[in-house]
Amino acid sequence: MREKLRSIIEDNTSKKGKVFDYFIQVLIFLSLTAFTIETLPNNSVKTINILKNFELICVIIFSIEYVLRIFVSKNPFKYIFSFYGMIDFLAIFPFYLQGAYDLKALRAFRIFRVFRALKLIRYNKALNRFHIAANIVKEEVILFLVITSIFIFIASSGIYFFENKAQPEIFTSVIHSGWWAVVTLTTVGYGDVYPITIGGKIFTFFILLIGVGIVTIPAGLVASALSKAREIEEDNDKNK
Amino acid sequence: MREKLRSIIEDNTSKKGKVFDYFIQVLIFLSLTAFTIETLPNNSVKTINILKNFELICVIIFSIEYVLRIFVSKNPFKYIFSFYGMIDFLAIFPFYLQGAYDLKALRAFRIFRVFRALKLIRYNKALNRFHIAANIVKEEVILFLVITSIFIFIASSGIYFFENKAQPEIFTSVIHSGWWAVVTLTTVGYGDVYPITIGGKIFTFFILLIGVGIVTIPAGLVASALSKAREIEEDNDKNK
Amino acid sequence: MREKLRSIIEDNTSKKGKVFDYFIQVLIFLSLTAFTIETLPNNSVKTINILKNFELICVIIFSIEYVLRIFVSKNPFKYIFSFYGMIDFLAIFPFYLQGAYDLKALRAFRIFRVFRALKLIRYNKALNRFHIAANIVKEEVILFLVITSIFIFIASSGIYFFENKAQPEIFTSVIHSGWWAVVTLTTVGYGDVYPITIGGKIFTFFILLIGVGIVTIPAGLVASALSKAREIEEDNDKNK
Amino acid sequence: MREKLRSIIEDNTSKKGKVFDYFIQVLIFLSLTAFTIETLPNNSVKTINILKNFELICVIIFSIEYVLRIFVSKNPFKYIFSFYGMIDFLAIFPFYLQGAYDLKALRAFRIFRVFRALKLIRYNKALNRFHIAANIVKEEVILFLVITSIFIFIASSGIYFFENKAQPEIFTSVIHSGWWAVVTLTTVGYGDVYPITIGGKIFTFFILLIGVGIVTIPAGLVASALSKAREIEEDNDKNK
Repeated sequence: MREKLRSIIEDNTSKKGKVFDYFIQVLIFLSLTAFTIETLPNNSVKTINILKNFELICVIIFSIEYVLRIFVSKNPFKYIFSFYGMIDFLAIFPFYLQGAYDLKALRAFRIFRVFRALKLIRYNKALNRFHIAANIVKEEVILFLVITSIFIFIASSGIYFFENKAQPEIFTSVIHSGWWAVVTLTTVGYGDVYPITIGGKIFTFFILLIGVGIVTIPAGLVASALSKAREIEEDNDKNK
Repeated sequence: MREKLRSIIEDNTSKKGKVFDYFIQVLIFLSLTAFTIETLPNNSVKTINILKNFELICVIIFSIEYVLRIFVSKNPFKYIFSFYGMIDFLAIFPFYLQGAYDLKALRAFRIFRVFRALKLIRYNKALNRFHIAANIVKEEVILFLVITSIFIFIASSGIYFFENKAQPEIFTSVIHSGWWAVVTLTTVGYGDVYPITIGGKIFTFFILLIGVGIVTIPAGLVASALSKAREIEEDNDKNK
Repeated sequence: MREKLRSIIEDNTSKKGKVFDYFIQVLIFLSLTAFTIETLPNNSVKTINILKNFELICVIIFSIEYVLRIFVSKNPFKYIFSFYGMIDFLAIFPFYLQGAYDLKALRAFRIFRVFRALKLIRYNKALNRFHIAANIVKEEVILFLVITSIFIFIASSGIYFFENKAQPEIFTSVIHSGWWAVVTLTTVGYGDVYPITIGGKIFTFFILLIGVGIVTIPAGLVASALSKAREIEEDNDKNK
Repeated sequence: MREKLRSIIEDNTSKKGKVFDYFIQVLIFLSLTAFTIETLPNNSVKTINILKNFELICVIIFSIEYVLRIFVSKNPFKYIFSFYGMIDFLAIFPFYLQGAYDLKALRAFRIFRVFRALKLIRYNKALNRFHIAANIVKEEVILFLVITSIFIFIASSGIYFFENKAQPEIFTSVIHSGWWAVVTLTTVGYGDVYPITIGGKIFTFFILLIGVGIVTIPAGLVASALSKAREIEEDNDKNK
């Protein structure tokens, strides 16, 4: 019995396993759509009731899925504390919390329902390749996260130094200037904050010349590691 | 006769085939230019008449081209339902619809004329290489489209959670917040919507740090696959 | 005599050749600085006179350099119509035109002086590698320029269709909408033009998802071709 | 004794060396946090006093570290004039200057304290790989810095030519237009300056089409060089 269930839930190559997977995927998609509609203003009472009931059904099914996954797992604790185990838990947990204590403050936990979206990634062929690639460039990506953080800090401090007197309400402190640093170095540039002094503009010029590259290098690293991961996979297939 | 026509229409290495190809390319270009001029305000009646007549001539020629392509094709149905067959059809279809029912509502279909532009891609040497590359990275690109969609959804939900109370008319619902997510993650940053709360700004910081990379990785993947495709082509040429 | 001059002007490995090269480079840099200062408002009469005289000296030296380069060249016509020959000519030509006809309309030609900046690239080691790389990816870059142009046209037509009624003074015609398409697809996003209708925003969403990649792929191609070019150079060095 | 100290300070593989390293890292982090808090407005007198005292302790410890590093170094002068030696000096120097002359003008030097952040990079595994990569692409990166500079200059001159008459207070001179060139070519696009004339918009179109690629190519080069550097490291590990 447990073996049979495992073949359905964990093995997505069997026919029944595929049906189960597609069913869960469609339900995740519908449940996220329901969440999105819920946030629309001016929903009729009828719509709200339908959405509430649908959410109840979703939570029940996801809860059964979660319990079953623990049940069929050879090592339940490993599953519970795995990445997907945590996601599966976070996707249903807020609902029960809300049920236990009907406090308005807890409504904020509803936002955790969006983590269900992460469950969708489970069903993708290329994901394995992505894991290999992530392993290859782990160290470089960490190095660049450190360098990016340092760069954002230096940019924030520098622009604070130049612009604080000219625009004290925007560049109030190094922390406030951090918002400018992030929006500028990622090249988003909303236009809500920008330097107006000559010094600040020249500083921005140098920060951008070096900084834009630093922020985009990790993406290039991941892309090239993914190409490498595919080659490794192809080599493995040939050697088989 | 049919063989001869095929050598002109389908074979773009023969001299007559080249002349035919260049003629169609120039006509596509002129017809798109005419479409562009048509949208200008304050066109004189004379200009409008010239453009209408030119469009009539273009449609007639493209229709003849379309019929001929079906006629010379060894497998007409394969051509009709191929990518270029559909484009060729979409490029003339709106005109006939407009002729049959002279309704204002149908004028919107004129926009389909722009699909003619896609016909221009047919005539490019490196296109074959692009097809090989697209095949290599198909799975990764799909993975990243899925991840990007999930990321845009999580970003929209998160910013809705932080900014909804502060800017209810902009971050009205998760769907409305989606506009912010797209404009921010692609680093366009028009500046029409941006977070103003501390929570929203910190959330944006983390979303940008991870998200900017995710959005630019597919471009890196395609670029590296194109390099690979060229190598494959070169290897094939050597082995010949 | 001509041989000796050639060793100074064309050969930048000899000691005298290096001195000549550095002298020209410094002069280009100073002449561009002078041009920049000239555009500043509120220059004193004295400053303007100094700048005019310095420009006269620069043009004389660059003219002598140009004549000498023709004189020492083994094939003068090849030099004159080469990329650098044209740049060298454009860098001095506007001055003589200005001298011959002292018309205000011709002052616009002064802008051609900035082409002197391009002369500076001549003196760079890695330039050869760049030529090899440009040759490798020529076809792909052309393909992407064609695709980008088509994409910008389709984006312009589409947004015109969606936004023309809502913002007739901004999205007046397909040509006017082109400004939006360029600023959006390159992710600059000044914020002077952006869609406000639901249809326009959804259209922008799809255009950005596909378009941002298309615009950044050529840069990735050039970067990977430059890596390839370095490998080719290294292989050549080993085989020597 | 000096040998023993060296094993603690310079060797970060021994247990005591690791403890020393972590201690310094944590102190750097805390000292930068203190600097950030110091810039916040409305700090209480008590907070300011705590921060001042903490800064004093930090400077004392960093000074001891600096002196010890000189003491244990086999070649003190090499350390003092090395990249990290200079950073270590700049991180404490402003404090002593401030102590000697209690002038308000010197308070600006406090900004140099942020250079402490750069000390944090020292402790990263992948840094060696980054040095190899930097060596590989040095020439190309310099070439692209030159090309980028030239491009920014030509863009500034061109937009000045087109927009100066229409927006004289923004595009006042080539130097003022440089701000637009930097913000546009890095695709930040704050929206504080943008062309409004037809000529300026068409010019921007061409500048963006070529320029966006030029600015992003160096990042691609570094990313691909880092992949190469990893391969070199792996080959070295295999040969051992």
